Parts: sequence; structure tokens; C-alpha cells
Amino acid sequence: MKVSKLFTKTRKQAPADETSKNAQLLIRAGFVYKVMAGVYAYTPLGLRVLENIKHIVREEMNAIDGQELIMTNLQRKDAWEATGRWDDEVVDVWFKTKLKDETEIGLAWSHEEAIMEMMQQYIESYRDLPTSVYQFQTKLRNELRAKSGIMRGREFVMKDMYSLHASAEDLDQYYNKVIDAYKRVYDRLGIGGDTYVTFASGGAFTKFSHEFQTICDAGEDILYVHREKNIAVNEEVLDEAVKELGVSKDELEKVKSAEVGNIFNFGTDKSEDLGIFVTGPDGNEQPIYLASYGIGITRVMGVIVEKFADDRGIVWPQNIAPYKAYLVRIGESEDVIKAADDLYKKLQQQGIETLYDDRDVRPGEKFADADLLGIPHRIVVSEKMLAKGVFEYKSRTNASSEEGDVDFLLAKIS
Amino acid sequence: MKVSKLFTKTRKQAPADETSKNAQLLIRAGFVYKVMAGVYAYTPLGLRVLENIKHIVREEMNAIDGQELIMTNLQRKDAWEATGRWDDEVVDVWFKTKLKDETEIGLAWSHEEAIMEMMQQYIESYRDLPTSVYQFQTKLRNELRAKSGIMRGREFVMKDMYSLHASAEDLDQYYNKVIDAYKRVYDRLGIGGDTYVTFASGGAFTKFSHEFQTICDAGEDILYVHREKNIAVNEEVLDEAVKELGVSKDELEKVKSAEVGNIFNFGTDKSEDLGIFVTGPDGNEQPIYLASYGIGITRVMGVIVEKFADDRGIVWPQNIAPYKAYLVRIGESEDVIKAADDLYKKLQQQGIETLYDDRDVRPGEKFADADLLGIPHRIVVSEKMLAKGVFEYKSRTNASSEEGDVDFLLAKIS
Repeated sequence: MKVSKLFTKTRKQAPADETSKNAQLLIRAGFVYKVMAGVYAYTPLGLRVLENIKHIVREEMNAIDGQELIMTNLQRKDAWEATGRWDDEVVDVWFKTKLKDETEIGLAWSHEEAIMEMMQQYIESYRDLPTSVYQFQTKLRNELRAKSGIMRGREFVMKDMYSLHASAEDLDQYYNKVIDAYKRVYDRLGIGGDTYVTFASGGAFTKFSHEFQTICDAGEDILYVHREKNIAVNEEVLDEAVKELGVSKDELEKVKSAEVGNIFNFGTDKSEDLGIFVTGPDGNEQPIYLASYGIGITRVMGVIVEKFADDRGIVWPQNIAPYKAYLVRIGESEDVIKAADDLYKKLQQQGIETLYDDRDVRPGEKFADADLLGIPHRIVVSEKMLAKGVFEYKSRTNASSEEGDVDFLLAKIS
Repeated sequence: MKVSKLFTKTRKQAPADETSKNAQLLIRAGFVYKVMAGVYAYTPLGLRVLENIKHIVREEMNAIDGQELIMTNLQRKDAWEATGRWDDEVVDVWFKTKLKDETEIGLAWSHEEAIMEMMQQYIESYRDLPTSVYQFQTKLRNELRAKSGIMRGREFVMKDMYSLHASAEDLDQYYNKVIDAYKRVYDRLGIGGDTYVTFASGGAFTKFSHEFQTICDAGEDILYVHREKNIAVNEEVLDEAVKELGVSKDELEKVKSAEVGNIFNFGTDKSEDLGIFVTGPDGNEQPIYLASYGIGITRVMGVIVEKFADDRGIVWPQNIAPYKAYLVRIGESEDVIKAADDLYKKLQQQGIETLYDDRDVRPGEKFADADLLGIPHRIVVSEKMLAKGVFEYKSRTNASSEEGDVDFLLAKIS
């Protein structure tokens, strides 16, 4: 993509009402556009990052036999009334509206009830289980405060997976498979080393529930971590958990963290509340075991911005960067233009997605934009370099640049 | 994909309240699940079709320099008030709801105002124009009646593109480029031969507006068509248009049709209503010319079902079928299982996405499902065929089958 063709432009200042670092940087760099607090549009650059994250998550969910589908935003209230979750006192993030005939409907903030209701059409017997489905859904939640940029939105993209089982043992086994899949996701997203499966409160069927927490200063949670033992405990269950785990509090490091995933074991609750049963091996009706597994796609993007950004801008991990390389052309002479155009073609032929800064602006502005946008690899084509028969290469995270030919560049980038 | 693993199942009967053929077939085959009138979830099979349609549309929009982004569902009312389109008397399909602080917000049924408002952040001068952006967005529309299945939904997927220009001439030129791109889209979707650029009413800046209409018995429109001259006129502007086009009414064939795309030239209306201007070549402020271009992705899917289905079920055009081949295994002997497994692997290696019916059910049930699902190519592996050293091949649209080896199959499918 040529920068001259990209309709977004970088800005020196973020909007005054935007207090979160992630949204400030993403707005300044032109990845998101703020519609209102907690509601952001994703411009072409932002959408590319989202799609890269989704691609990784999709591969890992498919690898554990998740079947992708897409549920609806609009929700009938009856299914949610059956489980008590239609009530605004119980779930305080509903957006609700009405059909023309005054029928009240809700906008989905989660999909357990909707999934169970749909599944009853397809699942009759324990032989139809287990099954696991997931979606990338734009969820709407009426958050009272939305001050964390894209880390907590009123409108946000979530991967939510739901698995249905005939027994608690089968659910447990799959639950652990999902934990492993989530670890692979965070590794590939570049935050695996600082992301922990965390003991938290709220486990309905086990003593603790599980969250995935990434160490991050902008996070809303407090974590106690034992890095070597790979143990992390949420503050709220600290006393109970250290006893259980046989570690002492002194061994644990206190850090701020952001939730990047959560998993819930609903047991047979939803099945029983909704009256959805299957025929068991003994021929009798039995309830279905349900677990749900979330990854906030936009939230993870925000956490990654917060975690890696430096004073010059965003720093994208290689796997999710909107473009791998930022090609800076310095000068407008025929030679330089031809050399830069040729290199741009060559990089694309090698499958290296490149932002080509072909604008007639000062080099300093191009360098600043390359940094702000957080593109991992920067390449410069200039008269000076051409005279030496080389290109200049710099990694986003490295202070010094190097020089070399095309093969040198390709080796650096891939 | 093995059919035994697919969580959806085919049904003999559609729900009693579903009157449209497209939704009846899609529900029976397990492509969609009905949540309420006009609101359908897309199961893995349905989602694959949607993604195939989106892939084609995306390629063609990218080819005319459209930049993909994603806008928001939640809309502030101020931008829509400025153009008069917040009023329920003017736009009668709004779903509206409220933030916690009682601020009224809307759920997007279109995005012209939102796009213009966003663009003002990036566009300052005529030099920043033209630009063209598009999205695949789940739109919500509070339709009074929603009886046409996925052809007219309260929640549906739309590709909407918006182009902004510095002059009427530049807009016209791009507008015609989009018409050509749309023609390529419908050709690739398999409905090009019966889809017409249609003269319709409502053109604000030209005498007529343009729609894309596909001849289809389930359509809601009446079209007058001249197939050789490639002319189509909406009934509402018939008298005026025949005069203009120099054809006589007698030459035109009257057909039912369904709208599969529409394009609007807003001229400078939105720009002026919203007070969004750019600096022109003469240094003075000037308004922006806007056009929008829609393709209802789910709607097109419904039209295709209606148009091609026969009494045995859906018939997908090759390019958008969820799987290219349906592999029927007859018999449970080791030989047959091995031969079918091997062929399944071979087809996948050749990039032929295959539904492998490995279930232990009657052959007739498998054949009926293959037909109902509308998969273009059916292959049978059975003892009888193995004894002859061949496979059986049948096209979905052909009554008779043929026999041959793997190369024969591959030639048939690709």
C-alpha cells in the first residue's frame, strides 16, 4: 500500500477527551476513529491488525475442532428470562430496544442462552456430543464507564466459543485442551511470556475460575505471580489459593495485569434452566454440560498497544502488524523513485506486506510516522544509499540502523 | 469436513411460520437458524457461503481501490439530525436505545453520515480526494414485516461502499467504474446473465437512479427487460424511461426481479447538510461529492437460493458453494472405508473442499442430503464401484451419473 493512497493520516495530538494510552496512540496513528466513549470504528490499518489477530485465533480454534458460525445481535427475551439473565438487575450491560409491534428485544452481550437454544434443534442424543462452536461477534455492552479505550468498549469484537458435553469429565478434558490452545494463541500474538492462566473467584463447579491475564501497567487487575513456577493468582482469591497451591505469599510478585481471556464452566446450569436435555447412554434424559471461552479481540489489540508502545509510538509484534515493512523513499529524483518502486515490487513478490511512503514530505516526518505506526521493519531508499549500492534497514525496536542489499533485507524481515 | 462431525443436521420440515422458500431450504439444510422473523444465525455451512460471497465482493472492491474498514453499529444522533435522517418519520427502520446516562443512540441501518463525519478528520483539501472505502457490516433495520427469509432481514450483512470526490465529473467516472465492478461480482456469483443495471426512480442528481436487479420469481419488483439490448427498466419509471431510451414497450419483457445491489449519487447534499467542506483548487472551501454503493450479502445469498433451487433442494453456483464436492461412502467394509478415506485426502490435497459423508446411514439419505445441501459435485465410493476400479460422479444439476478414476473426477470438478 502506498501511504499517499491511504486515506487516514497521522495526527500530532489525540482528542482531549481520550485518556487511555492505547486509544490515544491508535487514533493518532490512524488505526481507529472514535465515535463515542467506548465505540471505535476500525480504519484499514486497524482492521488489518484485527484480522491478523482473528486469523491466529481462528487457526487455533479450528485445531481443537471448533466450528465457526455467526450468531445474531438481536435476541428474543424468552431464552434469557429462563435463566434469569434478562433482568437488568442481574445483567447490567444490556442494550434493549423494540420491534415495530413493541416486542422488547435485546442486543447480545454474550451468547450462552442463544447457543443452547439453537443447539437443541440439532442435538438429540449424547451421541451428538461433544461439539464446540465459536464466532467472531461484534458485542454490544452498555458499560457505565468506558474509559480504557479499546480495552473496554461498548461495542467490541469478541471470539466466543461454546462447548457442549455429555459428561463433566468430557467437559474437563476439552476445557484443558482450550487452555492449551489459548496459550498457543497468546504465544503467537507475542504476549505469551507475560500471560498467565490465573486462579480467580467465581468458579461455580470448581473452587476457582480461570482467567488469562497479561502483565500490563494499564491493566485493571492485581495479580500475584510466581514466574518460575508459572503460577498466577488474582488478588481476590490470594489467601485461599496460596494454601491450595502450597506456595508462600512472599514468593509471589505483585503486578498489574489485564484480562485477555476467560473461560467459564457452567456445568448443567444452562441446560437445566432452559429445559434442554438429550437422551443419555441409558436411554433416560440427561442435561448438557456447557463451558464458554472468550477472547476479546479488540481488547487484546489494546493490551498489546499498551504493553509494547514506547515514547515514539506503537510497537506491533511481527505476527499482527498491519504491514511488515515500512519503505521510506527519500528524495524525488528519477533514480530514487525507480529504486524504491522496484524494491516495493520485490518485497510484495516475496509476500512481505509493505507500506510504501511515497509522499513528498520531509524524511523526519516519514521516520516519525513509521515509528508511530509501529511497523516492525523500516527500510530507507535514498541517493546516499544508492551511491553505496545498499538500502538502510532498522528494526522498530532497535536504535541503530544497518545497511545491506535485498537479500540482507529479506533475511532481516523473515 | 466429515458430515459425522458437523453439528448441524438436515430436517425434513421447515418451521411452520417460515413462508419463504429461501429460508425454508436454508433451515432444512442447516445453513441458517431462525431466531425470530428476519433474524437468522449462520451455521458453519451458511457462514462458508457468506464468506465465499464476501471474498468475491472484496476482491472486486479492492480492484477499484476501495479501502476496507469497519464502522460502528452504535451511532450518535447529532450527525443524523444534521441531515434530517434521525427522525423516525423520515427513516422508519431505526432501532434506537439508550446509554446508561439516558443519551439516545441509534443502531446503524446505513453509514453515509458516519462516513462523512469520520472523513472530515482525514480530508482537508481536494488533493485528498477521491477516496473510496467499504465495509462488510451487520446492519440492523426495524422492518415492519420480515417475511422474505434472508432476502429482507432485520439483521443482515451488507457490503456498503462510499466514494468521496472533489467534482461531479470525478464522481461520475468512479460511479461507472463501480457499475462495471458490480457486473463482475454478479458474473462471478453465477447470476450475471440474469442481472441488469436498472433504471429506477429516486435519482437526485440524474434523471434516474440505478439498481441491480436479478430476474427471480421470488423478487418484489417488476422489471421490463430487453435482453439483447441489455436494458432493464423498473415499472415505476417505465413511461419516462422508454421515451429516453428510444425503445417501445412492446419490445420489453415483463419479469419479476429481486434487487441485489443499489447505488446512490448524493451529490453535495450530505457534505452541505453536515457542514463538511474541503479546500478547493482555487483556495476556497468547496463541498464534497458523495456516492454510496450497496450489495446485500445475505440478500444475494437468498436470491441465489430462490433462483436455482429445484424440488430436491438448493443448487449453489460453483464459486460460492460451501464445499465443492460431496463424497458419499456406501458400505462400512474396510476396503470401502479405506478407499473413501484415501480419496477424501486426495481431494483435499488438490484444494477441493469436500464434505465427506462418513455416516452409517442409508445411501438414499446421503443422496438426499447431498441434493438438499446443493453441493455442485457428488462422488460415490462403494463396493460395486471399487470392483470396477472406478468412482461414480454426478453433477448436482445433471440427472445421470458417470464413472471414472481420480483424474476423471478432478477434471470434472475443476
